[in-house]
Amino acid sequence: MERPVVTLVTDFGHSEYVAAMKAAIWRQCPECRVVDVYHDVHHGEVLQGAHVLVKTVSEFPEAVHLALVDPGVGTNRRAVAVFAGELRLVGPDNGLLEPAVRGRDVVVREVAPIDPSASPVFHGRDVFAPAAARLARGDDPEQFTRPTTSLLPLTAYSHDRFGDRVLTRVVHMDIFGNVQTPVPAAEVADLLSPGRRIDIRIADREHPARAVRTYADIEVGELGVLAASSGHVEIALRDGPAAVAIEARIGDEIALDGS
Amino acid sequence: MERPVVTLVTDFGHSEYVAAMKAAIWRQCPECRVVDVYHDVHHGEVLQGAHVLVKTVSEFPEAVHLALVDPGVGTNRRAVAVFAGELRLVGPDNGLLEPAVRGRDVVVREVAPIDPSASPVFHGRDVFAPAAARLARGDDPEQFTRPTTSLLPLTAYSHDRFGDRVLTRVVHMDIFGNVQTPVPAAEVADLLSPGRRIDIRIADREHPARAVRTYADIEVGELGVLAASSGHVEIALRDGPAAVAIEARIGDEIALDGS
Amino acid sequence: MERPVVTLVTDFGHSEYVAAMKAAIWRQCPECRVVDVYHDVHHGEVLQGAHVLVKTVSEFPEAVHLALVDPGVGTNRRAVAVFAGELRLVGPDNGLLEPAVRGRDVVVREVAPIDPSASPVFHGRDVFAPAAARLARGDDPEQFTRPTTSLLPLTAYSHDRFGDRVLTRVVHMDIFGNVQTPVPAAEVADLLSPGRRIDIRIADREHPARAVRTYADIEVGELGVLAASSGHVEIALRDGPAAVAIEARIGDEIALDGS
Repeated sequence: MERPVVTLVTDFGHSEYVAAMKAAIWRQCPECRVVDVYHDVHHGEVLQGAHVLVKTVSEFPEAVHLALVDPGVGTNRRAVAVFAGELRLVGPDNGLLEPAVRGRDVVVREVAPIDPSASPVFHGRDVFAPAAARLARGDDPEQFTRPTTSLLPLTAYSHDRFGDRVLTRVVHMDIFGNVQTPVPAAEVADLLSPGRRIDIRIADREHPARAVRTYADIEVGELGVLAASSGHVEIALRDGPAAVAIEARIGDEIALDGS
Repeated sequence: MERPVVTLVTDFGHSEYVAAMKAAIWRQCPECRVVDVYHDVHHGEVLQGAHVLVKTVSEFPEAVHLALVDPGVGTNRRAVAVFAGELRLVGPDNGLLEPAVRGRDVVVREVAPIDPSASPVFHGRDVFAPAAARLARGDDPEQFTRPTTSLLPLTAYSHDRFGDRVLTRVVHMDIFGNVQTPVPAAEVADLLSPGRRIDIRIADREHPARAVRTYADIEVGELGVLAASSGHVEIALRDGPAAVAIEARIGDEIALDGS
Repeated sequence: MERPVVTLVTDFGHSEYVAAMKAAIWRQCPECRVVDVYHDVHHGEVLQGAHVLVKTVSEFPEAVHLALVDPGVGTNRRAVAVFAGELRLVGPDNGLLEPAVRGRDVVVREVAPIDPSASPVFHGRDVFAPAAARLARGDDPEQFTRPTTSLLPLTAYSHDRFGDRVLTRVVHMDIFGNVQTPVPAAEVADLLSPGRRIDIRIADREHPARAVRTYADIEVGELGVLAASSGHVEIALRDGPAAVAIEARIGDEIALDGS
């Protein structure tokens, strides 16, 4: 039998707080494998956390996903567990979890009222981690959650297509400086046809680019637009960070114009 | 039966040396779970390492704690194993381990004379890691340690209270820029009463602040003083790093003045 | 029976791509222990990756080593598995793997033609990780690899000795700023005799230094030359990064002159 897996996506950096959450998980589920997926979400940047979580659920479909980008810790935002088919996610109800289950039948449950002994500054350890661990070990959610209303949507995580133009937002800049969007490449396969010219518009700037199949197909100094390994559209430079070249920031509106 | 756990607190960063210590641990204890708690202690900063270790023993009380902040590697500082109730720690006898066992009955043992084949530059791998692993797997310490005298105290890790004034030092700045002290919040609960005004004095500067229950209770631009998730007093800013706002450095004297 | 181990040496940073590779490994080998050895290789810097890999195979001789520093992803560079005695390595055939098996009898096999469903931008996940996992779990390499010609050598990873002068290159700068070379200390034991004067020449600059046994033997402000914990010659400063002091960059030619 395989070990249960809990993935972690947070803005905690490589800090002692990650280990504290692991301790809390292992107290409930000693056999759990806990996977550090990404802890470098910009502090409080829900949009970026949501995108990394979208990528994470596709890599680890059978895991319980514990996501913590939670500027509202200590306020009355809800702590929720979300179920959608095989997917199981735990985190704050601030939009962070919604894109990962968008378009699916979703069951949302509130993680039970917080133990008065819980620290008001670290729900990750005292509320979310134990709940994720209990799900991972197979506890019935009814034991520690209760029904609640629907999940807060993250409306900024979206895109629109108008003819050959796609409007969306920057949702992540990866370690290589690739600028990532929430646009599924399969929905814009015609635009990504290798060699096709694409104008990138961000803020009031315009950057010429070209659709490519992989990084090595980008010419030196050129910007390429391609399907990232997650299946979403991204922008890359051959020899450096595209994010710097086009001055992208998380949340910026961006247009890809193939006309 | 649960797997034995070894935690790591070091100033090695995310380097290949951490993996080398894990290899050394697994050679002695293949079933050990090794937990990267914190590797970003400022290089050689024993005071900070000691504080992270204090926090670590409370999260993982049953683990063996391997702590390496060791500016004296290759000198004649002792390598020790320390036992205090259920707590077990291994590291250099340079003050690093002492705060985590302060106030308890302590047994200190010296890790046996170093194998001449040990590298004089990496006792973490060749001396400390094997000792921690042997403790974790349940070996009798008498097999590889010998009695020794008491542990070197870390006198800078302390605080004094004079009426409504607490004098202490900055011992850690966490990933969010919170400025942490060794003061147990429970000892100054009256000062931390939410809403109470507190003056923070550091170097020759003074910063007004307010006691709060959690981060979300801090007003924009305000400094809050609160009980951190470890139970120690910390200073936080609402929307940024308090450490930058008050120009704190590890070791700085700091006064919290509630009068 | 011990768990199979897969080590990772990459230039992926602490990114979600490392977790994606682990997911791919665990799909083939759920019982595998995956060890993050080093992910901070400078982007595309094969020479540095090769040196970290040399160090890694000596720490984990029984593991399968998955190394990914792969500027040519998506081109026709080969994906290979390399066997040398007990050593097993998987990675791109761009010189990265060769120093770790230099001087040994080597069998090189090409990892089977890439699944057309593999992402052209992430062979680490779709090609290399599954191959490493299958080796680790004990599959016969003939099932998923085919014979191929010899491994591409990394000629820059080398040194020459002329009397008391050693010519080599900077191949790594570690977390402490120590400047590392590929020179086995055992081959230049006479030069490293403690106290011996050594001139370091790099670019057109010259820096006086002294052979020492360990870091604590270096005087304040002095440069020391010593045997690193890996057994290779390195250059260190007492209280800071030698790499900054001598302005070293990966690939720089360096001479150690004991005459």
